[in-house]
Amino acid sequence: MNKIKQVRFSTMGNRAEDSTIVSMMSEALTKPDLLSLAAGFTDNEILPKEKITSIVDKLFLESTSSEYLQYGINQGRSKFRKLIADFFSNYPNESADYWSAENIIVTNGSQQALYLAAQILCDPGDIILVQQPSYFVMLEALKGLGVQAVSIPTFENGNINFDEFSKLITGYQLVNKIGRIKALYMVTYYANPTSQCLSLDEKKKLGNFINSLNFSLPVIEDAAYREFYFSEPYSAPSTLSLAEFKDLPVLYTGTFTKPFATGLKVGFACVTDNEWRNNILRVKAHHDFGTANFNQAIIEQLLLENTYSDHLHSIQIHYFKKMRLLDETLRSEGLNEINWNWEIPTGGLLIWLKGPDALDTSIGSEFYKSCIENNVIYVPGNLCFAHGTPLNYVRLSYGAPNNDNLVEAAKRFVSVAKTFS
Amino acid sequence: MNKIKQVRFSTMGNRAEDSTIVSMMSEALTKPDLLSLAAGFTDNEILPKEKITSIVDKLFLESTSSEYLQYGINQGRSKFRKLIADFFSNYPNESADYWSAENIIVTNGSQQALYLAAQILCDPGDIILVQQPSYFVMLEALKGLGVQAVSIPTFENGNINFDEFSKLITGYQLVNKIGRIKALYMVTYYANPTSQCLSLDEKKKLGNFINSLNFSLPVIEDAAYREFYFSEPYSAPSTLSLAEFKDLPVLYTGTFTKPFATGLKVGFACVTDNEWRNNILRVKAHHDFGTANFNQAIIEQLLLENTYSDHLHSIQIHYFKKMRLLDETLRSEGLNEINWNWEIPTGGLLIWLKGPDALDTSIGSEFYKSCIENNVIYVPGNLCFAHGTPLNYVRLSYGAPNNDNLVEAAKRFVSVAKTFS
Repeated sequence: MNKIKQVRFSTMGNRAEDSTIVSMMSEALTKPDLLSLAAGFTDNEILPKEKITSIVDKLFLESTSSEYLQYGINQGRSKFRKLIADFFSNYPNESADYWSAENIIVTNGSQQALYLAAQILCDPGDIILVQQPSYFVMLEALKGLGVQAVSIPTFENGNINFDEFSKLITGYQLVNKIGRIKALYMVTYYANPTSQCLSLDEKKKLGNFINSLNFSLPVIEDAAYREFYFSEPYSAPSTLSLAEFKDLPVLYTGTFTKPFATGLKVGFACVTDNEWRNNILRVKAHHDFGTANFNQAIIEQLLLENTYSDHLHSIQIHYFKKMRLLDETLRSEGLNEINWNWEIPTGGLLIWLKGPDALDTSIGSEFYKSCIENNVIYVPGNLCFAHGTPLNYVRLSYGAPNNDNLVEAAKRFVSVAKTFS
Repeated sequence: MNKIKQVRFSTMGNRAEDSTIVSMMSEALTKPDLLSLAAGFTDNEILPKEKITSIVDKLFLESTSSEYLQYGINQGRSKFRKLIADFFSNYPNESADYWSAENIIVTNGSQQALYLAAQILCDPGDIILVQQPSYFVMLEALKGLGVQAVSIPTFENGNINFDEFSKLITGYQLVNKIGRIKALYMVTYYANPTSQCLSLDEKKKLGNFINSLNFSLPVIEDAAYREFYFSEPYSAPSTLSLAEFKDLPVLYTGTFTKPFATGLKVGFACVTDNEWRNNILRVKAHHDFGTANFNQAIIEQLLLENTYSDHLHSIQIHYFKKMRLLDETLRSEGLNEINWNWEIPTGGLLIWLKGPDALDTSIGSEFYKSCIENNVIYVPGNLCFAHGTPLNYVRLSYGAPNNDNLVEAAKRFVSVAKTFS
């Protein structure tokens, strides 16, 4: 519309920038032949159309009431929350102590849990400590809230450099800014973008480190990809079950719909600190007064039927094969011979590539433009760094494309990489 | 958990208070015989179990892909947005100019649209002008954001007192605080809590008034109850279609699931100002990256089938009968003879009662406690006022209870009222 007078926005409204993801997507949409290794979508081919239809039929035929189509309660269905707690406390080495219906809040995907967690802890100018690299949508959300993401110092192999971490903390103490550090955020299983898991040893060290601090550092553990293991669940339990974290406020977030049907968007947070959980619940009521009850009822039924594990098994095999196909195509096309390196993931939906040191893969770079020209798109790795950003990483997703497209996209990518080698 | 160190919350986290609604609900849950005229739930009896099951079956059988179970786009399904625009531009006197897919954002119920609208406009300390009385969940959400709700001056009959409104604005101008006023929020059809509609004449006057101001005053029009008319749609079009509002930034919000199946939680905002809409979209992506695609696909299918109007017709008759039953029971029990007054609604789910001037119906009052003791609960009217709060109003909802419970609850309410007369 033609504005006569300008709308005056809040600090947040003015802070909002065009999302890099959104602009990438719109670019992609204009090119019909473009193949995407960027989108974090799952594979349409294995979405459980039949299972969901049969669950909805069953709810219709067997429910004595229509309550599953009515408003639910803000925290989420209590039976469903109990089933969530049961499901996760059955993971290897996981304890049931903190996995309780009472501690769980059902959310609109795990994304909303992350947003609420940050919103409740941080004022603009506050700091959340993050891995490097980290989940880039979380980095964007933090930016939107005016929160500064500061990277936890790590070694080249991804392990935390606790000496440097100590110095970082001391630095904030010296300038009297320790009060600004509000939480530590980490993706612990088949992380986006690296597909790495945080080892038991690293988790324990981190817990001890946080316990040694003279201020409260709540932990946000993002386990959105935990169910995407290829052969068996990763052995380290969540921070909820580790003695080193038992006195620390922990928020664990996960999702039932990324491994099942992303279109249903049902996630959850399990929060050990009562005050943190209650504050999140209050703001959740302002956001939407509770996640769609129908969607919760569907996942609840899935868990009741005990068929979720079978479903997980089938997607694990499916994505393992696709990962292999992408990895092998990159190799057979020769990417590993021109100074590109990557680890073969043991789970997840992503391969994290390190290109030649001098290469710039960021949006607008010659490499990026050449990929678009050659009808293939990826996520530039620099988007996954809060600062101190290297420019030579690339995130490839094998979730959505079918096998033919996956192979073709990988070939296009490698052929561009060769022209830059 | 036993906290060693205290979590430090954001200003918002610290601002969060126990929700009045939540505490009311928990109170209700502890009393098995309590009948509720408080909850804004709809009637389980007429939830479209069969229709939704058949739509899901149809999506399964007829869709060539599983895309309806995949992530959607942040703004919402484009076909669905087009259908929303078509549906609403067909209302009497409504113009199609601003009803476009491009202007529409699909949200998690209309609640999320309201939250985002306010979040994008207001910093703590800012002001949103509201009707008196107004929707109390919105008042709570504004409080959570640190936003001050200031009542628009009205006459006893509910019409806006524009002379006083002018003085209010001048007052803010004199103290240099006009920049704090960020929007005007109003519920325009069968409003919660009064069940009144804003007349065409009032809307036009309001538009002219806002145009005469020397600052931008965006309008948030909440039409969540618009489809709950008893005989025919209310004649006044939305602000989107009025010449008086054509140069003003307008956000219209509505819902498909309150009249259909609240458990699906699909609402929308239609926003005329590009910048306002884009900023909302950016923050929506941080909240949840788009409303559940599956739920949108169900409502899309409903609109495609052209059966939504039939459904609306059946619920309109249903709620009309329930409204009559509640109204007649209150009368036959003699409430109108002991200084209580109310208008018979022409739509909506609520009856708004004015009690004797001296009566206090607020939470914790003798009247409130006596109602709880007699196993009936209502929404105290004072919760619906931003300030200058009268204590003698009551909101009764006839949405959820079955006929027997509705009559019994009304009898209990009147019997308590008699002991206070």
